[in-house]
Amino acid sequence: MWWHRGGKLWRVGEPASRRRRLSTDDRRAELLRIGAALFAERPYDDVRITEIADLGGVSRGLLYHYFPTKQDFAIAVTQQACGSMFEAAEPDPTVSPVEQLRAVLDGYVRFAAEHEHPYRAMHTGLVADPVVRELRRQDLAEHERRVLATFLPDVEPPEALRVAVRGWLAFVIAVCLDWLDRRSVDRAEIVELCVRSLLDIVAAHRG
Amino acid sequence: MWWHRGGKLWRVGEPASRRRRLSTDDRRAELLRIGAALFAERPYDDVRITEIADLGGVSRGLLYHYFPTKQDFAIAVTQQACGSMFEAAEPDPTVSPVEQLRAVLDGYVRFAAEHEHPYRAMHTGLVADPVVRELRRQDLAEHERRVLATFLPDVEPPEALRVAVRGWLAFVIAVCLDWLDRRSVDRAEIVELCVRSLLDIVAAHRG
Repeated sequence: MWWHRGGKLWRVGEPASRRRRLSTDDRRAELLRIGAALFAERPYDDVRITEIADLGGVSRGLLYHYFPTKQDFAIAVTQQACGSMFEAAEPDPTVSPVEQLRAVLDGYVRFAAEHEHPYRAMHTGLVADPVVRELRRQDLAEHERRVLATFLPDVEPPEALRVAVRGWLAFVIAVCLDWLDRRSVDRAEIVELCVRSLLDIVAAHRG
Repeated sequence: MWWHRGGKLWRVGEPASRRRRLSTDDRRAELLRIGAALFAERPYDDVRITEIADLGGVSRGLLYHYFPTKQDFAIAVTQQACGSMFEAAEPDPTVSPVEQLRAVLDGYVRFAAEHEHPYRAMHTGLVADPVVRELRRQDLAEHERRVLATFLPDVEPPEALRVAVRGWLAFVIAVCLDWLDRRSVDRAEIVELCVRSLLDIVAAHRG
């Protein structure tokens, strides 16, 4: 349980003595939760790794044992945020494909806004890192698979459509980052723009 | 004048004595030309900065004077490649907007193929670098301006269309990188996919 005050994160309801009993996995997960909360409110460069140790009630040495560098830590946070994005954006097969798409995109854009810093890190700041690059590749492949399964469940999609869907995913990411930077149009407009754009691609494929 | 042999670049027709008379600007430009040629045939990590000094007939000290790090050098090469891309992709106002778009995109995709490594560097490997980020921002802004001037020369484009065009530019880059990686469809298909996608965006805007 976390709460914010004066630009800082505080943990309540758990005495220090209890925290010591966490297993290695739980401790790692807890440090990542703290990191996600810090990165949610501040950019990468403004988060000090020592803060995370202090908030987690662990020594800096132990933190460095789990995450040798700040970049390793940031990557693990990004990886976790990315996993939760898929849970948050699970399509609902009881509604039409277009409604599924709209709901998933709405969830996606909200999620990007709530996890602005890890989202930016994944698609800009950390993009050259080999681990993030691989994570991004897997993430895009899963989105591609989901989009194709929603719109063309019964056929093997032709390569030209796959290329277009991969291009469309880059469109969605760019539009999301643009919206996070400028907020120059409404979130609903962003979602409709992305929906429309994919429908046009699918329609072009169907001829 | 450069020629390739055994995976190396050689210069012909100019004796070493003449090279020494180059001005500072010319020397810098020459080092960049060598770099562009090396980066055109090999990825960033496989180019050693000392090779560039050797091929340019300058000391390593002088090379480091012009470009303190390999990254500085790679950025300057990218910057130059980027400038030539605009010259290569100048629209021809005597043909229809769609034909202009098709010709510019065809030139763009060819250019990306010919300058594959600087192109990749600009959009993936070096994207987190502040100088490349600014270069990329200017590059995208100029493409956005050109696209809007071609299709909507007489009106101030609404923000929603600008967002869509910026998203489309990301689509074009992603499709280009995908094509460089996989070559899974023809270049002409890539160009048509990008043309069609922009026409859909413009049509959606016009209602």
